[in-house]
Amino acid sequence: MNAYLAEFLGTALLVLMGNGVVANVCLNKTKGNSSGWIVITTAWAFAVYVAVVATGPYSGAHLNPAVTLGLAAHGSFAWAMVPGYIGAQLLGGILGGFVVYLFYYSHFAVTEDEGAKRACFCTEPAIRSYGNNLFCEIIGTVVLVSVIFYITAGSIALPGTEAETPIGLGSIGALPVAILVWAIGLSLGGTTGYAINPARDLGPRIALSLLSKKLNASPDWGYSWVPVLGPCIGAIIAAIGYNLVMA
Amino acid sequence: MNAYLAEFLGTALLVLMGNGVVANVCLNKTKGNSSGWIVITTAWAFAVYVAVVATGPYSGAHLNPAVTLGLAAHGSFAWAMVPGYIGAQLLGGILGGFVVYLFYYSHFAVTEDEGAKRACFCTEPAIRSYGNNLFCEIIGTVVLVSVIFYITAGSIALPGTEAETPIGLGSIGALPVAILVWAIGLSLGGTTGYAINPARDLGPRIALSLLSKKLNASPDWGYSWVPVLGPCIGAIIAAIGYNLVMA
Amino acid sequence: MNAYLAEFLGTALLVLMGNGVVANVCLNKTKGNSSGWIVITTAWAFAVYVAVVATGPYSGAHLNPAVTLGLAAHGSFAWAMVPGYIGAQLLGGILGGFVVYLFYYSHFAVTEDEGAKRACFCTEPAIRSYGNNLFCEIIGTVVLVSVIFYITAGSIALPGTEAETPIGLGSIGALPVAILVWAIGLSLGGTTGYAINPARDLGPRIALSLLSKKLNASPDWGYSWVPVLGPCIGAIIAAIGYNLVMA
Amino acid sequence: MNAYLAEFLGTALLVLMGNGVVANVCLNKTKGNSSGWIVITTAWAFAVYVAVVATGPYSGAHLNPAVTLGLAAHGSFAWAMVPGYIGAQLLGGILGGFVVYLFYYSHFAVTEDEGAKRACFCTEPAIRSYGNNLFCEIIGTVVLVSVIFYITAGSIALPGTEAETPIGLGSIGALPVAILVWAIGLSLGGTTGYAINPARDLGPRIALSLLSKKLNASPDWGYSWVPVLGPCIGAIIAAIGYNLVMA
Repeated sequence: MNAYLAEFLGTALLVLMGNGVVANVCLNKTKGNSSGWIVITTAWAFAVYVAVVATGPYSGAHLNPAVTLGLAAHGSFAWAMVPGYIGAQLLGGILGGFVVYLFYYSHFAVTEDEGAKRACFCTEPAIRSYGNNLFCEIIGTVVLVSVIFYITAGSIALPGTEAETPIGLGSIGALPVAILVWAIGLSLGGTTGYAINPARDLGPRIALSLLSKKLNASPDWGYSWVPVLGPCIGAIIAAIGYNLVMA
Repeated sequence: MNAYLAEFLGTALLVLMGNGVVANVCLNKTKGNSSGWIVITTAWAFAVYVAVVATGPYSGAHLNPAVTLGLAAHGSFAWAMVPGYIGAQLLGGILGGFVVYLFYYSHFAVTEDEGAKRACFCTEPAIRSYGNNLFCEIIGTVVLVSVIFYITAGSIALPGTEAETPIGLGSIGALPVAILVWAIGLSLGGTTGYAINPARDLGPRIALSLLSKKLNASPDWGYSWVPVLGPCIGAIIAAIGYNLVMA
Repeated sequence: MNAYLAEFLGTALLVLMGNGVVANVCLNKTKGNSSGWIVITTAWAFAVYVAVVATGPYSGAHLNPAVTLGLAAHGSFAWAMVPGYIGAQLLGGILGGFVVYLFYYSHFAVTEDEGAKRACFCTEPAIRSYGNNLFCEIIGTVVLVSVIFYITAGSIALPGTEAETPIGLGSIGALPVAILVWAIGLSLGGTTGYAINPARDLGPRIALSLLSKKLNASPDWGYSWVPVLGPCIGAIIAAIGYNLVMA
Repeated sequence: MNAYLAEFLGTALLVLMGNGVVANVCLNKTKGNSSGWIVITTAWAFAVYVAVVATGPYSGAHLNPAVTLGLAAHGSFAWAMVPGYIGAQLLGGILGGFVVYLFYYSHFAVTEDEGAKRACFCTEPAIRSYGNNLFCEIIGTVVLVSVIFYITAGSIALPGTEAETPIGLGSIGALPVAILVWAIGLSLGGTTGYAINPARDLGPRIALSLLSKKLNASPDWGYSWVPVLGPCIGAIIAAIGYNLVMA
């Protein structure tokens, strides 16, 4: 499977599973209605697991522009492939958002709460305070990307090296990275809802903006830059920090 | 152990453990009463784990006509064995349903709610809308069967090949497939209750129809085709899609 | 470490951790008060995990007379060692019960409910019906012991063989058996509270009977034979069934 | 990476993730507000997992003065390195406490409850009774450190030996030790909140004392010696016990 296709399908799967659980917990009359934070964070962790298992051997399973950026900034992923990876991830995020809409169609129809419907696509801070929100997205992503460096430490190739597997997480890294995302969600998800992934937030937000009238829910563009900029800054800090610490 | 016997016993075990948790959560006066979606989805995941650990080396642990169909459509399982596998799975599902009835006998006796009693045997949609319900069962099974293809990618043999282990999940695949089922339940189970397995739904529904008078609960045959047809369609889409993507 | 000492300490640890969570959930003013079935079943699973990790390489980590009996009935554990193993397990269960009492001392003191206090030592059925209760303990143990046979299938030696590791679960089997116990608890624990282990029930029940006046709670001897006899019957059925099926 | 730096960063990460979940559950208006004991214990387990994965290969991932002390008392870690390790861990704990404060800044601002704010830094017993509290911290740490000895049994080198990896948990031990901490939290965390680690308690308590006025919350120095002394005693008992049992 082509690496770009893998990133596209993998991110779509990630968003379908990840936003699917939000719909299950937040929309009316679902079987998982109001089942709480443990359900949301467990499902996001396993959404990552499933998507990494499926795509790890083909693209390294970045599934996240921040990971792609971090690996490039660290020097182990070719900058030339970055735009293609990020484009594929973003398109995957949009597709995933649409499938969630179709999947939970009957439940969107019986839900009034705009915030609940929006949460099925993109993140929203618990307390809106752009400075603190940005800080949280940065810290969350620093944890994500630095620990991914340690998980993959043995297998990260040098830049320019032609590895058998594309740089990133192979399928062996699926469980460690899932637990990492589980940990971040449980511990650091309480403020902004841990986007820590621009494609996971912006992609489905674009889907929501296209469905905005049908759903009677706005995409809240005012906040949209935080879960894009924060993860990008966090990834670069992680890469620089890792290189400093490991020098 | 004979492969057909393994499928029969494995599916009975799967249904006993999987429907057991529904009884524990939904019936009156149980220790797990109303313990929620996390309990149901975790238990179903581990029901799969336990059944795969026990039967993986003997039959490949399909335990699901959709998996059998998907592997056959993909070209890695002999069509000639499909009817035997599906028959064994269905009989196993019926047996499992009866054992759940005997196990939770005292609790069925103190439960009035017909829906709660029926849920201990077969799925029912949160919002009845056959089109959307069918779509959900198709998508859930596409995710299940495609990711199983990736989990088993290295070990799937070509059609006609005599492998040491029957085609499917060996016991090594038990944890990945359990997490996959966990993820599907948490994220995509909110609408129809994720049958994604005709034997898991039709088998115990047949048991319920035989116990219908004793339990004072109808088997809801009107819905029964959805969790049979949906998974079959989903499995075939997964097989075709996998072959296309990996070509 | 001597195998009998390992069984003694391992069962004490198992009961400390397992009954510890019951105290945490059921006694007044604890941090985990009323945290539900997911907490209880998860902790029992990990209690098994921890005890198996610690003792697996030394005694095979039976930690349960039913497992010892099942392995002997299956023909892979010497009958001559059975009484010693069971004695060590029972003494370990008594010790574990006492440590739970000391650990949650302040919380026992502020708890009135006799049933809550008793539950920190031994099981009690949700609906008292000795026939059905016995059936449940048999089925739960059949699942436990049969699947342990499959988990250990590759490593079970023939009777009379001198294996490097004592027969049973090595530390590699810790996670599979923990998930198995998790599954049984979630799915089949709703009726009798899944003793599925005579030492885990009778041992701390003896401790409770000695502390009965201090705690103002009776050990309910009337029920005590069910979680002893049921697991023994279940283990023998599992051994015979396994030998029949695998013949 | 230098071993002391690894202990410093690892403990900071441990406390950020571990105390982060307490903030998420206890502070007002968070997404995980009141999500319960399963969320807290799962997150602490994965906080350990993440920190061990990141630092295991560089320092052995003690991240806990009790572990350092236990390994030294057991004879497999050089006493000369003990002060440096403990100092690094304590400084890491202080840093972690500050980052939690910055991360949940907006939520501290909207929380009145002093106990809730203090809990985001250090432990407090459910029922204050220094004798029993100390006993609980001792027992919890005996379980932690003894089972770590068994987990690492194969890889613990003799004192004075130059091993490739520093003595302690390598990254392979991350999952076992995380499950161990999960088990301790669920089962033995109900009384004192399972500090079982002086750096995890004293470090952020120092951070709290510096932030005390801003947060309008006292660091409760009267209790602070219990989660320091208890784990130290427990670690030494574990080391002596292990050497006795395994002799």
